Amino acid sequence: MHFPLIPMVKLEEIKQIFKPKLLPIIWNKTKLTLLDQSRLPFEKIYVDVTKVEEVSDAIRTMKVRGAPAIGITAGYGMVLAIQDSISLEKAISDLTKAKKILDESRPTAVNLMWATSRMLNKAKDLVEQGNAKSVKELKELLEIEANKIFEEEYEAELKIGLYGIEKVNDGDTILTQCNAGGLATGTGLGTALAPAKLANALGIKVSVIAPETRPWLQGSRLTVYELMEENIPVTLIADTAVGLVMFKKMVNSVMVGADRILSDGHVFNKIGTFKEAVIAHELGIPFYALAPSSTFDMISTVDQVKIEERSPDEVRSIKGVYISPKEVKVYNPVFDVTPPKYVSAIITEYGIIYPPFDKNMRRMLGK
Amino acid sequence: MHFPLIPMVKLEEIKQIFKPKLLPIIWNKTKLTLLDQSRLPFEKIYVDVTKVEEVSDAIRTMKVRGAPAIGITAGYGMVLAIQDSISLEKAISDLTKAKKILDESRPTAVNLMWATSRMLNKAKDLVEQGNAKSVKELKELLEIEANKIFEEEYEAELKIGLYGIEKVNDGDTILTQCNAGGLATGTGLGTALAPAKLANALGIKVSVIAPETRPWLQGSRLTVYELMEENIPVTLIADTAVGLVMFKKMVNSVMVGADRILSDGHVFNKIGTFKEAVIAHELGIPFYALAPSSTFDMISTVDQVKIEERSPDEVRSIKGVYISPKEVKVYNPVFDVTPPKYVSAIITEYGIIYPPFDKNMRRMLGK
Repeated sequence: MHFPLIPMVKLEEIKQIFKPKLLPIIWNKTKLTLLDQSRLPFEKIYVDVTKVEEVSDAIRTMKVRGAPAIGITAGYGMVLAIQDSISLEKAISDLTKAKKILDESRPTAVNLMWATSRMLNKAKDLVEQGNAKSVKELKELLEIEANKIFEEEYEAELKIGLYGIEKVNDGDTILTQCNAGGLATGTGLGTALAPAKLANALGIKVSVIAPETRPWLQGSRLTVYELMEENIPVTLIADTAVGLVMFKKMVNSVMVGADRILSDGHVFNKIGTFKEAVIAHELGIPFYALAPSSTFDMISTVDQVKIEERSPDEVRSIKGVYISPKEVKVYNPVFDVTPPKYVSAIITEYGIIYPPFDKNMRRMLGK
Repeated sequence: MHFPLIPMVKLEEIKQIFKPKLLPIIWNKTKLTLLDQSRLPFEKIYVDVTKVEEVSDAIRTMKVRGAPAIGITAGYGMVLAIQDSISLEKAISDLTKAKKILDESRPTAVNLMWATSRMLNKAKDLVEQGNAKSVKELKELLEIEANKIFEEEYEAELKIGLYGIEKVNDGDTILTQCNAGGLATGTGLGTALAPAKLANALGIKVSVIAPETRPWLQGSRLTVYELMEENIPVTLIADTAVGLVMFKKMVNSVMVGADRILSDGHVFNKIGTFKEAVIAHELGIPFYALAPSSTFDMISTVDQVKIEERSPDEVRSIKGVYISPKEVKVYNPVFDVTPPKYVSAIITEYGIIYPPFDKNMRRMLGK
């Protein structure tokens, strides 16, 4: 039983049917309220931030994490930057300073710089073209722009979710990896978890198996928490058990996010994704990468993408407690790469892309 | 460059060339000295035990772990049982009591009951046939029997190691799983790690990649420690990274132990083994299961073997510290099963068994 929902459920309808139960970023005119993700899953604490420095601090201390979530947060941070500006000229100078402060809070986050640049450029345009005649007007228009950043992300995820539902049958169990959910994207919906959440809202029964995803344990800390908050049945497994759950036919499909997708269909995602893809392929289980088109890298080849390595202590210890000899040599890559051979389809906000990816991706993007 | 060493290096020669640097079980006439494995890898503490109750306690509190190691320990425990026996009749009664105490210390350990039965039956035979005429004589002969249990295990591992070296080239990196080393077997050599250790002793350069093996972390706690003690280069990875290290051609072969091998070649081993086997197969990397013939189960079919599940808290927490919501549902299987399709060869003390396993296993065992 398949649900070709896109023609039936419109975007505005699904917005009414599905409301995220866990909102990590809440904007409220004069303040930004952030779910402190560094305390999850043990404490659900929201913090109010009203100053650029506080926003920067929240990003630096991992209260906010995940590329899209950081971008959205930075957008609102730019609105907060001109709350007390005394002139339009001062506002632009305050925004320039704010961009610098925010950009430095996580230098590797591309979305962060993208969002602050977009906000600063918008402000400059508004002032130069006379569309913002006062700081108050500028602030209102920048607020609209920040909401747009949020809304664009959310709508892309809703579309990914709706397209993804075509691959979900009633009663399915979906294996995921890491946290490609609403905590990572900041919207409360997510990418890889979007089909499960929308299906659940539409009365289609789904459950999720979440591998803990060492070394950072995004699975046990975040994915599990997020799905429990949404009342979607979720089972936590050790990363070692991904093979057995597929072998025992406990999994109907694998749905993961992506950090970068190359034009030939190579999918870079959290370490551990590749093993799920190979086993799924071997056992005839479909493997889907769900990501917005902003993750597409139409230029790089697979050998050009460097796989980041992080501190050995992430593997040697958990929550500050050592579990191995302190002096052991460690290899701790953050991402792995899944060749297109193992990818059944890539699900984006524009639709579902099937192999051959090179041709079909360019056709869908019109590139 | 291959090393067909079996014809060149004899068993007695390799015993001179290789001496384990880390001995978990040391027998010394009146006492048994055990490496407290529950303190590894942070503290290297040996404890002396002289009473059956202390041996039982050491097994119960995981100071000794691993099926063969528990069997060897129990064998010596039976010798300790008659240190103060005042007559041969009393000795048999003390041994009967000791068997009961030891067997109860780990009811699921087949090797434990096998070893205590062997010792008790040997004692009964010796007394009945008049070959032990005093408690002192009985004790000396039982000591020989306990040493035999150790020696048989050690020689089987030496042979597995020597056969395994045929699959090791100079400069190789071997990916393993869990701890199928000398800590688990009690001899200081091991099964899956035996080829690496003997190769190293013979001047063949090898290194090992050890996945941490959640939930129990035998890789980070034990395999890494054991290989560092042997001065064999070892790299620790998270379980999520097994795919990438093979994809990046950092691995020449996969060598794992086995808890049970069926006559058709299905290999039951620590959870996570299956994923390594599938990826190795897909990428053309040989996958070897190394185990003594005592692990062969020539009767059961794959569906008849129940996969044990352990406490959800093993996945929810690490070293007593919770890493996930306490109430999350968990699936925590201890073993997985690797179908023969993914097994390049099974390496035993009788030689290397290639597919078709059914025919070749029976032929080698003469069954």
